[in-house]
Amino acid sequence: MKKIVFDLLNNDNGQHFAIEGAKRFLKENPNYKLILVGNREMIEKEFSEINKNQYEIFENNEIAKKIESPRDALKSNSSMFEAFELVSSENADGILSSGDSASFIILSALKIKRLPKVSRPAFMPIIPTSKDKDILVLDVGANINVKAEYFLEWAKLAVQYYEAIYNIQNPTIGQLNIGTEHYKGSEIAKEAYELLKNNQDNFKFAGFVEPGSAINGEVDILVADGYGGNIFLKTLESSFLAFSKMLKGIFLKNFLTKISALLVKKHFKKMKNRFDYRNTGGAFIVGLEKIVVKAHGGSDDLAFYNALNQIKLAIDKNLVEKLKAINEEKNEEL
Amino acid sequence: MKKIVFDLLNNDNGQHFAIEGAKRFLKENPNYKLILVGNREMIEKEFSEINKNQYEIFENNEIAKKIESPRDALKSNSSMFEAFELVSSENADGILSSGDSASFIILSALKIKRLPKVSRPAFMPIIPTSKDKDILVLDVGANINVKAEYFLEWAKLAVQYYEAIYNIQNPTIGQLNIGTEHYKGSEIAKEAYELLKNNQDNFKFAGFVEPGSAINGEVDILVADGYGGNIFLKTLESSFLAFSKMLKGIFLKNFLTKISALLVKKHFKKMKNRFDYRNTGGAFIVGLEKIVVKAHGGSDDLAFYNALNQIKLAIDKNLVEKLKAINEEKNEEL
Repeated sequence: MKKIVFDLLNNDNGQHFAIEGAKRFLKENPNYKLILVGNREMIEKEFSEINKNQYEIFENNEIAKKIESPRDALKSNSSMFEAFELVSSENADGILSSGDSASFIILSALKIKRLPKVSRPAFMPIIPTSKDKDILVLDVGANINVKAEYFLEWAKLAVQYYEAIYNIQNPTIGQLNIGTEHYKGSEIAKEAYELLKNNQDNFKFAGFVEPGSAINGEVDILVADGYGGNIFLKTLESSFLAFSKMLKGIFLKNFLTKISALLVKKHFKKMKNRFDYRNTGGAFIVGLEKIVVKAHGGSDDLAFYNALNQIKLAIDKNLVEKLKAINEEKNEEL
Repeated sequence: MKKIVFDLLNNDNGQHFAIEGAKRFLKENPNYKLILVGNREMIEKEFSEINKNQYEIFENNEIAKKIESPRDALKSNSSMFEAFELVSSENADGILSSGDSASFIILSALKIKRLPKVSRPAFMPIIPTSKDKDILVLDVGANINVKAEYFLEWAKLAVQYYEAIYNIQNPTIGQLNIGTEHYKGSEIAKEAYELLKNNQDNFKFAGFVEPGSAINGEVDILVADGYGGNIFLKTLESSFLAFSKMLKGIFLKNFLTKISALLVKKHFKKMKNRFDYRNTGGAFIVGLEKIVVKAHGGSDDLAFYNALNQIKLAIDKNLVEKLKAINEEKNEEL
């Protein structure tokens, strides 16, 4: 039986949605067991219909505080902290939490073993594009200070995730930069460019790309340092939110605009769904010997359910074993 | 008579729009003279109605090539290169060109004197927000490698521009970062944060801000290193373009959606106008002893006309003299 640790607390909306998402997931996946960290009473009340051998409860009612310094993440008895400890003590295959990103990254890096030949774990969300496809972006904030070799390591990890998720081999990778010209960017960016260009074993390298190439789905994977990747992701999210809000303002203006809204409603809903983070689940932390996913702080039951399925997909494809084998091979070659 | 050098070439659409923009500007501003660099025949044909003492023509028909390396910008006889030379030889007050950004920045830095106490010039566009206001963002790509003190220097320059443009004193400045927490970001970002926090003489410092704060107009000025600022700006531009395109796709779907489009058309046009770069003119290069503006490569007559007015506004408010006086004062204090 495969096991996923699920921190039910640390969600903006309480435990209810997490419990609902977990229930739906377990009903559909009898070969999975969830190790639930949260309030025993609430869980047991909702789980009467679930097979007892499909879950285990670890009582914890302490929400992770917003940390004041990185060290604070380790001085904690929170459910998120306990969840990360349980991954190894219960030998689970994956973990899901919607807790604060800063603590999440620190706990991931310290509590879960890194894959061989990976210098640093990276944050990798799945993002929608204006085309009918999603792309993977990494790193989006775990690593502010980077070295050129991280980019290649991350690219190789992302390729395996991309193949597992979309069944597509040899994806196209772009490197986020301030222009497509080879002389632009930092020294590290230029070094990383050379590394990526000279190691296109299982991906095509599109070179330096600007944000628009990613937004329009011209690449499958976007590699970036954590600073640039984070600014890219947050600007994208905020732009779409701002645009949607302005749009809504227009449609609510008067009687005629309200009629107009009715006529396009279903098409807009479809577009909005495409850009709804709840439908992609969460962001992977890649480079670790477990499948680690951080759900959005505002996740609802659908978001949690999708995040659990996202973890399941990676587990079912034996992604960690595959990455270990590939990276150990590389080790022997040296 | 105030003088602006105007490079008419180096526009995606040829010289026609630049000539039209110049004509309109001169008709409305008899106290201004334009030093035009471009094709003499084309200009003279269109300028028959313009007062001869309001313009001077320097014949040049060489478009600036896209450079292969930064040095290439200086090995050139292009109209943009000549325009930058003319700023000092003709003792002009400002310069406008829509040529390639990379060359533009290099020529600005090398051909135009820096203001006292400014380490590096910065690229500063005016960007629209989801509120009914625009904000200034700098740097957006001139400086990839930054020092903490640049942020404070740029903040002080931007404050003066903001006051000149909007007649508003004591604007709010945010520093672009991957989170609002003080422990986040690079060492340089944290140093810059302290400098800004301790020097709020003529601005309010909002601390670290994420992209959303700028997009929603919660700050008046956003300071950033050139890398982060560039990723922010280009992601914002590309997101809005992608969203507009998807919107158009929806409205063109069928008969009912086309009717819907008719009912909201004028409101959308207004929103689109807000986000149309042509209405803001161009991006300032700040930190120099002239008013320097880079227009968009795809500028039309309206965009050029607005860019010329943007330069005029700064000249009429004696911005350079003011900045020189402030920065020289600071010099004496030391």
